[in-house]
Amino acid sequence: MNIVLLQPEDGQDAFWIIQQPRQYQHIIQHLKLNIGDQLKIGIRNQARYLAEIKKIDAEKIWVQPVQEETIPAKLPVTLVVALPRPKVLRRLVMDSVTLGVDKLILIHSYRVDKSYWQTPFLQQLDHYVTLGLEQAGDVHAPEIQLYQRFKPFVEDILPQMIQIDRPAYLAHPYAEIAMPQTIDHACTIIIGPEGGFIPYEVDLMKNNGCQVYHLGNRILRTETAVSYLLGRLFA
Amino acid sequence: MNIVLLQPEDGQDAFWIIQQPRQYQHIIQHLKLNIGDQLKIGIRNQARYLAEIKKIDAEKIWVQPVQEETIPAKLPVTLVVALPRPKVLRRLVMDSVTLGVDKLILIHSYRVDKSYWQTPFLQQLDHYVTLGLEQAGDVHAPEIQLYQRFKPFVEDILPQMIQIDRPAYLAHPYAEIAMPQTIDHACTIIIGPEGGFIPYEVDLMKNNGCQVYHLGNRILRTETAVSYLLGRLFA
Repeated sequence: MNIVLLQPEDGQDAFWIIQQPRQYQHIIQHLKLNIGDQLKIGIRNQARYLAEIKKIDAEKIWVQPVQEETIPAKLPVTLVVALPRPKVLRRLVMDSVTLGVDKLILIHSYRVDKSYWQTPFLQQLDHYVTLGLEQAGDVHAPEIQLYQRFKPFVEDILPQMIQIDRPAYLAHPYAEIAMPQTIDHACTIIIGPEGGFIPYEVDLMKNNGCQVYHLGNRILRTETAVSYLLGRLFA
Repeated sequence: MNIVLLQPEDGQDAFWIIQQPRQYQHIIQHLKLNIGDQLKIGIRNQARYLAEIKKIDAEKIWVQPVQEETIPAKLPVTLVVALPRPKVLRRLVMDSVTLGVDKLILIHSYRVDKSYWQTPFLQQLDHYVTLGLEQAGDVHAPEIQLYQRFKPFVEDILPQMIQIDRPAYLAHPYAEIAMPQTIDHACTIIIGPEGGFIPYEVDLMKNNGCQVYHLGNRILRTETAVSYLLGRLFA
């Protein structure tokens, strides 16, 4: 946790209140902060501040903003990922948010187990968004969309996301050309499920405007591929 | 698992034997392969083959090599990481191996909890190396070294690893210059613990030949930083 992210309602009065047990414990037990110490506070979807601890009781910490700080810019990227299994999903959401993905879209695909759409984690995405923002020092939650049907997404939604200066890149192990590097424009990147997209899916995305590239001759796990690819594209 | 990695002793006769329960189950239950089907087999630290299933019983699968395949090249990088907590360690080892790190060094640092050195995972590193190789389709296990004392490592070992055409880059959130990108030479990269290296440690590494760079204004988790950084450097 590199900032403590508060809801706007907790940051309205002169003193702001940290009362989430997870955040309270991190500050008291892990960081061992006291009255007079400073820490970084974010107000969700608003701004980020350096703040000073003014009062502590057994459940709450009162802080006062000292100075506004710069929020890290988002990457100009929409990340489309085939829904991974629940454990991976949590880390994927956290990492994508930490890395600054502007918009995250989870889609179905032939090799996505249908049971993954029933995971309770999908109801708790916002919690993992918060953890990702707190790690990065960011306050702006990216938009997250879910599409449980592959074909309508690829045929109706994806083409609208593609423009000349905003291409869509599909990372596919068996493509012939290597993924671009160090680009200076926005893009959509698409990453398949464990086992990859099936040929029909790759063809459908290609026919709907995607450019298909490989990421080298090592096959990466979904989460590893996301951070590796973002490092490569937006270095 | 994108290849099934066998020990050299399982690949000596005309028919090779897959008998590890984890591998057997993956092939039978997950991939649902049968006699006559082909799969990728690696012989550890030797070579990789396309092979055909010749016989299956309740515990073993016999395969015969059909054709040798190319092994993905390693990245010319030594990765030095402050020992993370055990859960992260497993994924870090797996991912580093999958991404093709040539040598992995785990070191102590002020913010590494001393209990981390007692984790049983440190006795099982080879298992996570195997999983990383099987994910990548690689057969060559990287060298792994452990240094439980920071200062002797930085003063005695690290300088020997640095040459003009083989610099050492320390990723540090508060550095002034951004990490290089798309390099065409070997290097050592150093990544700190959760909470970062302390200023004394950063200075000691600098004084022993490290170049200190930031990775942007988002603070990444150790594992995310590793794949992001490798994507950035070796795109």
